[in-house]
Amino acid sequence: MVKELQASIRTIMTPGPVEAEPRVLRAMSAPILGQYDPEFFAMMNDVTNLLKLPFQTENEWALAVDGTARAGLEAAVCGIIEPGDKVLVPSFGRFGFLMAELAQRAGAQVKIVEQAWGTIFDPKKVIEEIKAYNPKMLIMVHGETSTGQMQDLKEIGLFCKENDVLFMVDAVATFTGADFQTDAWGVDIAVAGTQKCLSVPTGMAPVTYNAKVEKILASRYQVELGLTKDVRNDRFISSNYLDLSQIQQYWGPKHINHHTEMTSMIYALREGLRIVHEEGLENRFARHRKHEKAMMTGLNAMGLTLFGDMASKMPTVTCVNIPEGLDGEAVRATLLHHYGVEIASSFGSLAGKIWRIGNMGFSSRKENVLHTLNALEASITFHGGKIAKGEAAQAALKFYSEN
Amino acid sequence: MVKELQASIRTIMTPGPVEAEPRVLRAMSAPILGQYDPEFFAMMNDVTNLLKLPFQTENEWALAVDGTARAGLEAAVCGIIEPGDKVLVPSFGRFGFLMAELAQRAGAQVKIVEQAWGTIFDPKKVIEEIKAYNPKMLIMVHGETSTGQMQDLKEIGLFCKENDVLFMVDAVATFTGADFQTDAWGVDIAVAGTQKCLSVPTGMAPVTYNAKVEKILASRYQVELGLTKDVRNDRFISSNYLDLSQIQQYWGPKHINHHTEMTSMIYALREGLRIVHEEGLENRFARHRKHEKAMMTGLNAMGLTLFGDMASKMPTVTCVNIPEGLDGEAVRATLLHHYGVEIASSFGSLAGKIWRIGNMGFSSRKENVLHTLNALEASITFHGGKIAKGEAAQAALKFYSEN
Repeated sequence: MVKELQASIRTIMTPGPVEAEPRVLRAMSAPILGQYDPEFFAMMNDVTNLLKLPFQTENEWALAVDGTARAGLEAAVCGIIEPGDKVLVPSFGRFGFLMAELAQRAGAQVKIVEQAWGTIFDPKKVIEEIKAYNPKMLIMVHGETSTGQMQDLKEIGLFCKENDVLFMVDAVATFTGADFQTDAWGVDIAVAGTQKCLSVPTGMAPVTYNAKVEKILASRYQVELGLTKDVRNDRFISSNYLDLSQIQQYWGPKHINHHTEMTSMIYALREGLRIVHEEGLENRFARHRKHEKAMMTGLNAMGLTLFGDMASKMPTVTCVNIPEGLDGEAVRATLLHHYGVEIASSFGSLAGKIWRIGNMGFSSRKENVLHTLNALEASITFHGGKIAKGEAAQAALKFYSEN
Repeated sequence: MVKELQASIRTIMTPGPVEAEPRVLRAMSAPILGQYDPEFFAMMNDVTNLLKLPFQTENEWALAVDGTARAGLEAAVCGIIEPGDKVLVPSFGRFGFLMAELAQRAGAQVKIVEQAWGTIFDPKKVIEEIKAYNPKMLIMVHGETSTGQMQDLKEIGLFCKENDVLFMVDAVATFTGADFQTDAWGVDIAVAGTQKCLSVPTGMAPVTYNAKVEKILASRYQVELGLTKDVRNDRFISSNYLDLSQIQQYWGPKHINHHTEMTSMIYALREGLRIVHEEGLENRFARHRKHEKAMMTGLNAMGLTLFGDMASKMPTVTCVNIPEGLDGEAVRATLLHHYGVEIASSFGSLAGKIWRIGNMGFSSRKENVLHTLNALEASITFHGGKIAKGEAAQAALKFYSEN
């Protein structure tokens, strides 16, 4: 017999999923409402309205795709891109390449431009690439969790806007944790996730898009068989489940039957967004910056060095160089199994080279930073790493006493 | 300011989503575990093992797609079907047509065979159609909630097995509520949902498939860019998010990074499945049949007639003819707003003609049946319908006292 659920209490300091807000977990235990219950539609409308603040947008459409963040990313790509369309993807990490993968699967002619991992693009370089390739859409990642780097987007976005290139941004890892301005940065469609800085369990992908994107979606709208046989479209979107033109009709005032909205996840998303509104965006960003600083102060005091260009570092992820000769995975295992602290490794060429320490949402708080520093010091020492002992805690405590 | 979440207590007697098991809702409030936490992988393995009983399968693979039921349906279709493949879809309701829609979007040459709504196919007719069209895959719906009809599948499935035609079944509306035998009926891939007879909130799609399907998926496997550039495949699956070959690698022992598994929904699914195991499949089916009988007894006593062929009626949905001249939507509104009871309307040609009353999972219980009968009688009478007064409750109470 499978035993009753027992999830250990963890200090989750990865770049997601992170610890969920206790209020969000509580909201999820509310009883189910039917998908056509007016009370439930009101909650979906709340979600739309609440999403506009963190996306910093006046777009009419802000909704959630029922799936993890990449479901939203794929919905955005396959809703806009048709076979043969040119897509430019400047990539500075693992998730940039994922965007290229999604665009290729949608049939795009994809041009990938690579930037060394640990740095970001000079916006002028991206603009040159746009001029040279003349794509229908440019896709960029805002916060690249694989390397801890955050791309400047404004100059690029405004160029796209002036030159009629669609601009899509993966804002999954910064959403509600760092400044992201959909409208002011000329972003046509932005996709976020719930399990990172929002501290809602994994499972929904908030998306917002403007009238330009809405027009493209509308031009590809096909009512599914079973509802009517009359609204066919030669340019139908290849996915039905991730068809934003249909999802919009379901979220819109007509509520045309599509999927069955994830009741409990809507409760969770709504509650997570309420918390963002209560805290206020600026306060929330400042809180993330404060705990990031505390963590970096402690790591430096321990004698560890950080990976990547500090000028473009994401406030929500800190990448640490694993000291030469140390088994990074052994340290992570000790952290998890003895301290209940989880930090992340990385991908591709960075696997085994860096640890990634998240600083996201509900996990971004003082006791988590202090506990992680102590546990990391002890675990590194236990595995034979040579670091300064006892310094990290004092440096972080001093920082907190002054900030 | 958006107010604190307040979901009314409803008696949900639709064909889904239905009321969630209270234990499931409680399980969802457990703290988050990381997606690579060994404790979390153990829970995913529990889900795999637990799924095999209700699917009645010895397949190696039983997993959940992170999305609503149609995410699982689309994953199954687009994982197997390549552009140009022939797919036969015998359809006896709205959801059969949805399968045709999914297959068309995957690029299949789809042949739809239609059966009058309210009846099912003679298996011999389906077999004749298979012989005539010779498809790569046959897709059928087991329980068609739009009409309340349940298709006999065994004879069809065994013919497919002998003749090397792939057989996919949408078991969303019967899973854990009525007998469904993956292996004995020759089903190659079956897809279920959580929000119906399992009484877990909407959001996951359990899927099981055999070695024949696994081989097709493996032949189309493409590792995504960002992890490697080396494993490319000319026959890649068009969706990355719903790519079962990748999802299998994530659920498998290597746990290759793909989406971030929906933590709280895995908790919920695991708990819902534990309840199925505790109750036992046969007891669970018998419970559904009992409450179905009680509901039908009451409806008949009220003087209402049922829609569709009673010989092939789904035990988990009862379709009622809306009495001539009565405004079915007005009755539903009174039920919801005054009694907190939700029943469903239907689609297409049946819209306004029938009500659909669910009998699923945690909602399939005595007090719900009795409450619904009383509320329905009062609401019909209130809107001017002529029905027998007071008879339904007595007939149902008599039934329960004897059963």
